[in-house]
Amino acid sequence: MTMTETSPASRNGVDTATLFATLNAVKEMPAAAQFQFRAHNEWVTGTHNRSSIGDYFGVGEERRHEQTFVFDADHPAVLVGRDNGPTPVEYILHALASCLTAGLANIAAARKVTLTEVSSTVSGDIDLNGILGLNPDVRNGYQQINVKFSVKGDATPEVLRELVEQSRSRSAVYDVITNGVPVVIDVDVD
Amino acid sequence: MTMTETSPASRNGVDTATLFATLNAVKEMPAAAQFQFRAHNEWVTGTHNRSSIGDYFGVGEERRHEQTFVFDADHPAVLVGRDNGPTPVEYILHALASCLTAGLANIAAARKVTLTEVSSTVSGDIDLNGILGLNPDVRNGYQQINVKFSVKGDATPEVLRELVEQSRSRSAVYDVITNGVPVVIDVDVD
Repeated sequence: MTMTETSPASRNGVDTATLFATLNAVKEMPAAAQFQFRAHNEWVTGTHNRSSIGDYFGVGEERRHEQTFVFDADHPAVLVGRDNGPTPVEYILHALASCLTAGLANIAAARKVTLTEVSSTVSGDIDLNGILGLNPDVRNGYQQINVKFSVKGDATPEVLRELVEQSRSRSAVYDVITNGVPVVIDVDVD
Repeated sequence: MTMTETSPASRNGVDTATLFATLNAVKEMPAAAQFQFRAHNEWVTGTHNRSSIGDYFGVGEERRHEQTFVFDADHPAVLVGRDNGPTPVEYILHALASCLTAGLANIAAARKVTLTEVSSTVSGDIDLNGILGLNPDVRNGYQQINVKFSVKGDATPEVLRELVEQSRSRSAVYDVITNGVPVVIDVDVD
């Protein structure tokens, strides 16, 4: 028996005791799982703008992250910006990678698999003739997104693949990106 | 005639001369608009992981942003993480705000509207009974996303609203989020 097996509460850096306690708490009180996340954005100039992510609602009350996270977005010069941050569409790829990876670590811990290395590259193909309005047959967004995972841990290749598959099947961002979400836009011009 | 009107090349911080030159260049050579964006992610521990965004392909060649942008993602303590970054789903909201805002600034400049202030709050409602596997009728991702824009500029309220609508209709991230994109996942376990 390895030390990790005698300390399952911290496998993969996941506090599995708290993870299961949280699951049981939500089972008892499903309304606790209603969350609202938010980003507040301010235009800077041109294609450069900045979002702050701090407040959210969850487990029945307004909450705040331990710090307010601030992110710039922009276009590179080749897309008539000043490259003060990634493009908005690149943040989508980061969101997908981070959601699948966080889920993978949690699921591996729950299944008593110790991971030693997880990395991924997410790439998205996009034809800008869409957003430039030059070809009505081309969509505005990505045409396809590819995720390449490298996963190492103390389980068979088959089990490691199953962990990724289970993460995919429970990923919030994967669901948003593959199935779409209704978006309502209100504009205040006063 | 205002000074801005005599210097249309820099309205809203948008180099409109370059914007139109880029549009014309792509009209002449549509293949230049084929881009591939990428994020490289490394698992840190637990739900904490980190993406690097630097390289991309566009206008016929491999390119790099002027710097490599690095972003952490995590879960807050209430979701069994350590709050080292926003959650993956919060990055989605930032991506949507930043795409709509960048487009708005470009479109306003093209239509000779000078913007003085643009801010937005994007909120997403999510029921975590989905990703927790506690209710098969609940989806994993957001159930709805709401965008609240505040826009000020030297145009009528009707024109300002039309700018937002045109940005929505040409937004890559809005398209990804509302219509979905196929995602292919490959796993290397060697």
